[in-house]
Amino acid sequence: MGIVITAFERSPDGGKGLARDTRVRWALEETGQPYDVRLLSFPAMKAPAHLALHPFGQIPTYEEGDLALFETGSIVFHLAERHAGLFPQDANARARAITWMFAAVNTIEPPILDLVIVRIHEGDKPWAAERLPLVADRIRGRLKQLVAHLGDSEWLDGDFSAGDLMMVSVLLRLRPSGILDEFPCLAAYVARGEARPAYQRAFAAQLAINAAPPSAG
Amino acid sequence: MGIVITAFERSPDGGKGLARDTRVRWALEETGQPYDVRLLSFPAMKAPAHLALHPFGQIPTYEEGDLALFETGSIVFHLAERHAGLFPQDANARARAITWMFAAVNTIEPPILDLVIVRIHEGDKPWAAERLPLVADRIRGRLKQLVAHLGDSEWLDGDFSAGDLMMVSVLLRLRPSGILDEFPCLAAYVARGEARPAYQRAFAAQLAINAAPPSAG
Repeated sequence: MGIVITAFERSPDGGKGLARDTRVRWALEETGQPYDVRLLSFPAMKAPAHLALHPFGQIPTYEEGDLALFETGSIVFHLAERHAGLFPQDANARARAITWMFAAVNTIEPPILDLVIVRIHEGDKPWAAERLPLVADRIRGRLKQLVAHLGDSEWLDGDFSAGDLMMVSVLLRLRPSGILDEFPCLAAYVARGEARPAYQRAFAAQLAINAAPPSAG
Repeated sequence: MGIVITAFERSPDGGKGLARDTRVRWALEETGQPYDVRLLSFPAMKAPAHLALHPFGQIPTYEEGDLALFETGSIVFHLAERHAGLFPQDANARARAITWMFAAVNTIEPPILDLVIVRIHEGDKPWAAERLPLVADRIRGRLKQLVAHLGDSEWLDGDFSAGDLMMVSVLLRLRPSGILDEFPCLAAYVARGEARPAYQRAFAAQLAINAAPPSAG
């Protein structure tokens, strides 16, 4: 009846913590839940056994007894609802934390995903170089609005919540592009998330799997 | 203490029901909650009074007493949690319905939003015509996986839920492109959603505001 999640056998990011299992590991650590990990190769992610758990053939999934979930937001919500640590007690504050979970995945993340498209999926297209600044500007537009909300606050709405966990995780995807560091207020916010002991444990756990083996030389 | 939502004074879609207030109206109708609507012009959406409610300057918002929410997914969740009609009783089935809510907004909707970018925001760019089929194929890839899950089922997981409400609403955005009708299984699924009396009432309510006035001729 223990919790089992899935993760990449080897993450494409080489251990930077950007694969989505890190979000779920972080939520498990914040809520103090032990878990096991089943590692999957890319072919295994597209095989019928995994598609039965995750119709879109991705990681992570979450299994606990006869419950099977996919979608990081849903898994983090499930943990936040059942265990202390990620949702405030007050009903209105909890509803606002859930609002920020959805804002992270439906308002902030989609323009950030476009960065992957323009740089990777369409990186060899003749329009890639000219399109990149347009995509980056759409991201900046959203980040300016987020900065206007966050201001000098430590977290998005009162204490750290599942909304911050999701938002920090989404913003982390921007760091390699340099765009995050254009907004010191958000870079500091992300750094506060990364400094949490639960994040540190989650990051170390995925790094132990994904770090390149030491050179034989 | 009544519920007040915001919507476009005049929706850019001219009443096709694709503005996101329709999703919230639908959830309000499914759960039998009366509501009032405050209509906003585009300048009013970017004014400080609205930004205090919605940091990203969009519609819809949801106000009820001292609670103020934004993000359609969060508002639909709030209604589903508090009123019968959108979540199953069984805890595991409820967790799966929440999974489908997140899948709608974080897995299916992002590639669909790219269609708006390639056709509208970048419609005048020299790469638009060549990029359009790439964007459409990414959408088709996701829809094939959704078809494989749905099969002959009426809804995504047992009875109609908030997960179906969100998924049908996201898929509706595809109809003008013709891509939805390439997948008869999904077109029929969307049609089942549209046939629900609660959807019909929600659609009629937004149409009453957004329909073009009858020609004076």
